Amino acid sequence: MPDTAYDLVIRNALLAGSTGSVEADLAVSGERIAAIGHGLGAGKREIDASGRIVTPGGVDSHAHIEQLSGGGVMNADTWESATTSAAHGGTTSVIAFAAQHVGKDMRQVVDDYAALARKGAVIDYNYHLIVSDPTQKTLKQDLPALIAEGHASIKAFMTYDAIRLHDEQMLDLMAVARENGAMICVHAENHGMIAWMAKRLVDRGYTAPKYHAISHPRASEPEAFERLIAMSALLDQPVMIFHVSTREGAAVIRRARGEGIKVFAETCPQYLFFTREALDKPGLEGAKWMFSPPPRELEDQDALWRALELGDLLTISSDHAPYAPDETGKFLAGRDVNFKQIANGVPGLQLRMPLLFDAMVSKGRLGLSRFVALTATQPAAHYNLPHKGDLAVGMDADLVIWDPQKRVTLSDDLVLDRTGYTPYAGMEVTGWPERVFLRGNPLVEEGKLQTAPGSGRFLARQAGPAAAPTGNLPMELDPDRNFGAKLL
Amino acid sequence: MPDTAYDLVIRNALLAGSTGSVEADLAVSGERIAAIGHGLGAGKREIDASGRIVTPGGVDSHAHIEQLSGGGVMNADTWESATTSAAHGGTTSVIAFAAQHVGKDMRQVVDDYAALARKGAVIDYNYHLIVSDPTQKTLKQDLPALIAEGHASIKAFMTYDAIRLHDEQMLDLMAVARENGAMICVHAENHGMIAWMAKRLVDRGYTAPKYHAISHPRASEPEAFERLIAMSALLDQPVMIFHVSTREGAAVIRRARGEGIKVFAETCPQYLFFTREALDKPGLEGAKWMFSPPPRELEDQDALWRALELGDLLTISSDHAPYAPDETGKFLAGRDVNFKQIANGVPGLQLRMPLLFDAMVSKGRLGLSRFVALTATQPAAHYNLPHKGDLAVGMDADLVIWDPQKRVTLSDDLVLDRTGYTPYAGMEVTGWPERVFLRGNPLVEEGKLQTAPGSGRFLARQAGPAAAPTGNLPMELDPDRNFGAKLL
Amino acid sequence: MPDTAYDLVIRNALLAGSTGSVEADLAVSGERIAAIGHGLGAGKREIDASGRIVTPGGVDSHAHIEQLSGGGVMNADTWESATTSAAHGGTTSVIAFAAQHVGKDMRQVVDDYAALARKGAVIDYNYHLIVSDPTQKTLKQDLPALIAEGHASIKAFMTYDAIRLHDEQMLDLMAVARENGAMICVHAENHGMIAWMAKRLVDRGYTAPKYHAISHPRASEPEAFERLIAMSALLDQPVMIFHVSTREGAAVIRRARGEGIKVFAETCPQYLFFTREALDKPGLEGAKWMFSPPPRELEDQDALWRALELGDLLTISSDHAPYAPDETGKFLAGRDVNFKQIANGVPGLQLRMPLLFDAMVSKGRLGLSRFVALTATQPAAHYNLPHKGDLAVGMDADLVIWDPQKRVTLSDDLVLDRTGYTPYAGMEVTGWPERVFLRGNPLVEEGKLQTAPGSGRFLARQAGPAAAPTGNLPMELDPDRNFGAKLL
Amino acid sequence: MPDTAYDLVIRNALLAGSTGSVEADLAVSGERIAAIGHGLGAGKREIDASGRIVTPGGVDSHAHIEQLSGGGVMNADTWESATTSAAHGGTTSVIAFAAQHVGKDMRQVVDDYAALARKGAVIDYNYHLIVSDPTQKTLKQDLPALIAEGHASIKAFMTYDAIRLHDEQMLDLMAVARENGAMICVHAENHGMIAWMAKRLVDRGYTAPKYHAISHPRASEPEAFERLIAMSALLDQPVMIFHVSTREGAAVIRRARGEGIKVFAETCPQYLFFTREALDKPGLEGAKWMFSPPPRELEDQDALWRALELGDLLTISSDHAPYAPDETGKFLAGRDVNFKQIANGVPGLQLRMPLLFDAMVSKGRLGLSRFVALTATQPAAHYNLPHKGDLAVGMDADLVIWDPQKRVTLSDDLVLDRTGYTPYAGMEVTGWPERVFLRGNPLVEEGKLQTAPGSGRFLARQAGPAAAPTGNLPMELDPDRNFGAKLL
Repeated sequence: MPDTAYDLVIRNALLAGSTGSVEADLAVSGERIAAIGHGLGAGKREIDASGRIVTPGGVDSHAHIEQLSGGGVMNADTWESATTSAAHGGTTSVIAFAAQHVGKDMRQVVDDYAALARKGAVIDYNYHLIVSDPTQKTLKQDLPALIAEGHASIKAFMTYDAIRLHDEQMLDLMAVARENGAMICVHAENHGMIAWMAKRLVDRGYTAPKYHAISHPRASEPEAFERLIAMSALLDQPVMIFHVSTREGAAVIRRARGEGIKVFAETCPQYLFFTREALDKPGLEGAKWMFSPPPRELEDQDALWRALELGDLLTISSDHAPYAPDETGKFLAGRDVNFKQIANGVPGLQLRMPLLFDAMVSKGRLGLSRFVALTATQPAAHYNLPHKGDLAVGMDADLVIWDPQKRVTLSDDLVLDRTGYTPYAGMEVTGWPERVFLRGNPLVEEGKLQTAPGSGRFLARQAGPAAAPTGNLPMELDPDRNFGAKLL
Repeated sequence: MPDTAYDLVIRNALLAGSTGSVEADLAVSGERIAAIGHGLGAGKREIDASGRIVTPGGVDSHAHIEQLSGGGVMNADTWESATTSAAHGGTTSVIAFAAQHVGKDMRQVVDDYAALARKGAVIDYNYHLIVSDPTQKTLKQDLPALIAEGHASIKAFMTYDAIRLHDEQMLDLMAVARENGAMICVHAENHGMIAWMAKRLVDRGYTAPKYHAISHPRASEPEAFERLIAMSALLDQPVMIFHVSTREGAAVIRRARGEGIKVFAETCPQYLFFTREALDKPGLEGAKWMFSPPPRELEDQDALWRALELGDLLTISSDHAPYAPDETGKFLAGRDVNFKQIANGVPGLQLRMPLLFDAMVSKGRLGLSRFVALTATQPAAHYNLPHKGDLAVGMDADLVIWDPQKRVTLSDDLVLDRTGYTPYAGMEVTGWPERVFLRGNPLVEEGKLQTAPGSGRFLARQAGPAAAPTGNLPMELDPDRNFGAKLL
Repeated sequence: MPDTAYDLVIRNALLAGSTGSVEADLAVSGERIAAIGHGLGAGKREIDASGRIVTPGGVDSHAHIEQLSGGGVMNADTWESATTSAAHGGTTSVIAFAAQHVGKDMRQVVDDYAALARKGAVIDYNYHLIVSDPTQKTLKQDLPALIAEGHASIKAFMTYDAIRLHDEQMLDLMAVARENGAMICVHAENHGMIAWMAKRLVDRGYTAPKYHAISHPRASEPEAFERLIAMSALLDQPVMIFHVSTREGAAVIRRARGEGIKVFAETCPQYLFFTREALDKPGLEGAKWMFSPPPRELEDQDALWRALELGDLLTISSDHAPYAPDETGKFLAGRDVNFKQIANGVPGLQLRMPLLFDAMVSKGRLGLSRFVALTATQPAAHYNLPHKGDLAVGMDADLVIWDPQKRVTLSDDLVLDRTGYTPYAGMEVTGWPERVFLRGNPLVEEGKLQTAPGSGRFLARQAGPAAAPTGNLPMELDPDRNFGAKLL
Repeated sequence: MPDTAYDLVIRNALLAGSTGSVEADLAVSGERIAAIGHGLGAGKREIDASGRIVTPGGVDSHAHIEQLSGGGVMNADTWESATTSAAHGGTTSVIAFAAQHVGKDMRQVVDDYAALARKGAVIDYNYHLIVSDPTQKTLKQDLPALIAEGHASIKAFMTYDAIRLHDEQMLDLMAVARENGAMICVHAENHGMIAWMAKRLVDRGYTAPKYHAISHPRASEPEAFERLIAMSALLDQPVMIFHVSTREGAAVIRRARGEGIKVFAETCPQYLFFTREALDKPGLEGAKWMFSPPPRELEDQDALWRALELGDLLTISSDHAPYAPDETGKFLAGRDVNFKQIANGVPGLQLRMPLLFDAMVSKGRLGLSRFVALTATQPAAHYNLPHKGDLAVGMDADLVIWDPQKRVTLSDDLVLDRTGYTPYAGMEVTGWPERVFLRGNPLVEEGKLQTAPGSGRFLARQAGPAAAPTGNLPMELDPDRNFGAKLL
């Protein structure tokens, strides 16, 4: 029996992991969870958490931070403001984006972005590599090296004029990912349908924010999923589909998974809590709820919850995309515009965890273990974040102590990310993060950040098992079945 | 009882229509079938057709004649040679293509092409309008006028670099078709997959003709079908999918039809009689079997026959695309080339009917009525060819008298279309067209053409019922259900 | 050129066949259609039918006539009254039922029933053989002989206590049908679900006729279809599913057909024109609309029309099951009863054709050719009724001359079948049969029957192509793939 | 900090739970796991488990022990021998069967069976209640009381002459389960198909054990699943489908789950490791591999593994059904018999865990966490076994210490259950249970049982969340949508 004390012991809480909860004590040594149980030795610091719930810190695997969008608008936040807001909401790890624009050097993009993150982050982080210019240098030189350095996921867009890849480019990218063991994440919507709808709408004078929702027809989602999955199956390359919004989209994913295709998917709180009615506000007010794909119908919300229950949707990320609803952000092109000229996206890093705690734990939908799994364990496992995402011995002591009784009415004032608003303003939630720890150290206590900018750490990620292809090449690519073609 | 004689009476044949056959006489007055039955009055000409089968003249709804391909190669045939070859095979109506290339004026394209057809055709004809440059003039001015003049179908390509439309253009075209009552016919394959495969193959030295088949992965077909059907459903615009080649493609069509989407489809003899093994010949010989999509596997042939039986495939056309296997055609780019530089397509106008008579009537697959329906009745009805396609009173007297016992070994020598070859050389068929009549007049007798170039007639086609949308607009486009959007 | 006149010539009508219509003349010699066209010679009798439509006589392939039901109630009609009513509605052929009850000798059942039909029928006829006691004698001796004598279809029930077969018996019957080339027709509903629902409803006091509809849960139909189709596929034996009522049922059939399983199906007017609301009448009045399966919802009607359009439903029969709404029929068990004690079925032989003419021709749903196909051509072809079902040379001259303008309000007074009522009373239809001919002889003219009882003729039917198995035995039964088992 | 020592501390093992593994120590106080981690205080007993893996004790949720089969043959084992064999294989909880035969009183059956278990069990246990005679007393009186006493699951058979329920009985049972919160477990095969096949086979002289596999056609499984699921959906009652054996069966389950139907399922090692070839042995030897449903093809094994990965199959149980291959068991009816007279079932309680450890951990298919989840965590959670099934603080200290390097060749000699054989004889596995603890107490050490018969404990189970209906009643049963029917 060791005679040295633990660094921290939290006593008497309900400790909630991804498969169950227990009333017990939790001890931290250094940066890791050292022990869970009864009869644990003393801690240098002890916290009595009776009546509280302890969960692992949230892992938000999809957030735009201090980044220039595909449309050329800068995010409202900085790494400091964004991660500070995340910390207050109980999120301790984030995966943002190093976004290549056309003509830019991928390596330089990553280096520049890394410097921003290093300087400002107060939580741990990594970034998906957005590729919009798959030059030979990008494909053959930069990506293999970057993946090897711990950037094990690439993001590509099937829509947005400035940054989308056409199918042949997507296949090139998938082939690189396959060879180097990276995951491909995709914004999958049919670009032509959306462009056609938007043009018709604008031509006919339907320019208000609410027409943004109409301009993304439901069919644009399952179509793009089908196409992406067909390419994924062709190359036997796993893909992660971002922000699923429709029942039909979820059904496509389910069917493909049943066929053994390695397709994964996420959704976001905005698809679980809003419908397209949210955009139907006077004047430009609806712009605050403009994001892509748009929110859909109530029956889609039900379908997404079921897909979360069934495992077809693996994670709930924020798709945090913060633009102030003013001329610096949403209305950079001015206020006398049509909906296509308004910046897309909503802030979400800070409130994702409280919103889902309320829905899943306080209101009971799917329950506490699934809350932990969907907001922390599964994103960490899927993206191979080392030692992150669960309440278990050996994991990083990223901990959130929740007051499950506390009621908070959400408001713009609460928001720390510099957008100055939240689309959830006015909603009341039950349950709130009281204290947050990052690798054993206090991160937020007494409603205040306890650390300095730059204290967040880069999380090198190796390709995880999820990114591994199955090895079943389709006939056309299989050297043993096709005249000897050896294409991968 | 009239005292005037019929112009022609064919006696004692087995008269085969699309729903049944009967041994009886058939009388012609002027250009039409005047009567069918027993006890018919005398004809100015009488033919004893005992032991023979009479069918309606074939309707080939998909043939490239005297046309510049998307790849810039001129067809080997002329309207005269092509329709002469068709006539000898029992085909009396054809729909070819007035093909717009980028930068060309649609109206001028049609006028020029009409002049060629007028001059050379010996059978009746029309042409689908290939649109590859959907300018505002094309969309708003030329197409509406042309459709009104009897060109009720438009063709578009989803693949081929020089002529394909991207999705937004396809939707523009569909919207024009919907407003003007035209059918949209589509070559639907995923361009990116094919381009990616071809590039990899060529880069790695797999350049022989047989790699053409591998370069069109199976998945490229159902993917494109799904996308096209999603667009069709979005705009509630009927579509005709050309040359279905895979089991998966047929399944997509079946599913969509079951959902009430107005999707129609055809296949061609080359998909029913060949597999990709056909391309696996020494040297460049395989080029004779290069067409797109390529032939597939035996199980695909079975699936296509079933789809024909179930009505999911409506017609069997030739997709006649004649290139001589020499430096004027297949090898215009020379013989030291890779498969991407070899012209695509096979001749088929002449032998489509005998090949299918052999398979369906002599060998019994689906039977005589379905032979008539799939080669004549259904293409005529689908494209609204007036008075064409069945053996019934009031229809044009386009007649084929078959000798059902005659055995013919197919060979290059038989071919009259100026390609100088047939991919079916060496096959033996039972059943052969002995005489052919067009609108009551002898077209082929004694193995010789009986008419002069230019005797074929343009068949003005109005939009038929098949082209009518169902009226069920998707939610996004329905003015009553979406904030008042009125987009079509 | 013959110098003898035709027996009958109908001039100037619109002659409507299953694939098209033409204004022309139609000549009859003896019992058959001798000629169709213009310029036909004189007839001994000539009828000017200008402004009229001529269709083939209706073929009703599912009607209970002068038969004891499974529930022990005698039909209200006789062969004379039933076929007289049919004739007035334009139906000239009917397939009724020779119904074996448990303990009865199949051969005797058929002989007795044949005597009734011979005596009373005024239209041509045959009967499906209902088997409810598949003894060895029935299976090995009677059925093979009866099938060979022209009874090429067997009917079995999956529900109704007194007559249903369990799965093993159904397989025995299918094996006999397969060996002898007969079709199996099935009333397919899940017996357990219906029995359970009915018991619960009655136990709780829900006894009114409207609860009949509730006692047949929607799921009872697709479940039974799936089971039946699984058995059909196991033995590779074609089946005909009677009276499809639900969208889900139609979808099961479509899916199975796409897989190549030989499943066929019909629906009936009552499923196209009524919903379950029809039963919701005061007192026992709803009993007039009690039939099984019950009518469903409006969306089911739409699904059935689509299935008719797609060919998944092949015929529209009446399922004529006539019980007077009094103590001799519907209320044989008295009026103080629950819905399970009320006889099931509605009369329909007489009005099937006018109802569908109104819906399909006058109102235009699917159109005139499909009206002919679904009411005459396809039932005749499916059940192999020789020379029946289309307007073509060589077919029996079973002709209906319709006045397409005549409006008739349906009423109980119109009905000639001795039930004394029609569920369609109060509906107005446009289009009415003016004259009816059977095999060239007047059957109904001036609103009166022109022939005597017994003038109808037995139609010996051989197994048609539809009844032919595909030859694809499942692995378990295939001698080459299973340890040599040779079970069929 | 407590000054009392733990009762037991296992140090330095790889502790494997259902979501991850960690090298750490595990402490036990009393019957429960008290702490996991580093720096734990001393134990009264300490075990150094370096190089070992510790998992939770296995939970086998499907085993026939000391029970009379539906076919009237007594199991070879007793509670003592069966649970002793289980203990040696690392299984510490079992759910067996209290099996009612027709005419027996359910309460008496349970009381008698409980006495046997109490006397002999050395591991913890419960039993599913097999109902084969759903009398009013059984349904209304015995089952509600028994469920309330902790028997929260009922088993029913859709096949086997002596014990199967017909559909109406199944619905009655489901209604009782729904009202009282119990799970329904079902042996789902189509009885008619199997009976028909078996009769034909035997009639034609195919009597060897290998024909047992052929007598269960593949289609008998998905058909029964569809039917069961239709009933489950009708009453909104969760069901657990036992021993899934086919790809098609797994697909039915997947589809139903996607529709939100509460269907769960298991498979067993014999379906993952054998194909039907296993029965093809000389003489009667194949009888050792006779179980129902039979093993299928290699592609079915793949489909089952995928369904386990996707979560469509929730647990892997043994379906232990032990009959000695002699005249007391398999051949109770003698040796001169056909396959229908040979007792069905294989022993599996003892080797389930080592077989799956070898396949999943040593050979790596799905991995260590899923091994724990599928063999312990998920069965415990699904059946609501309190404190069972995972390696976590607060759970029962049911522990297995595995030597992951130990290689063992399986043989009949190893088997302790009194059947005298194992179908896995000859297979070599890597990984073997070295020590087993039950509720903190040594159960097996040094290859010997450490406790006395009767030391196992009855595990009262309340209905868990899995058994909760969703509340979505189908239209027919919903009082608000159906004329006020209130049937449940």
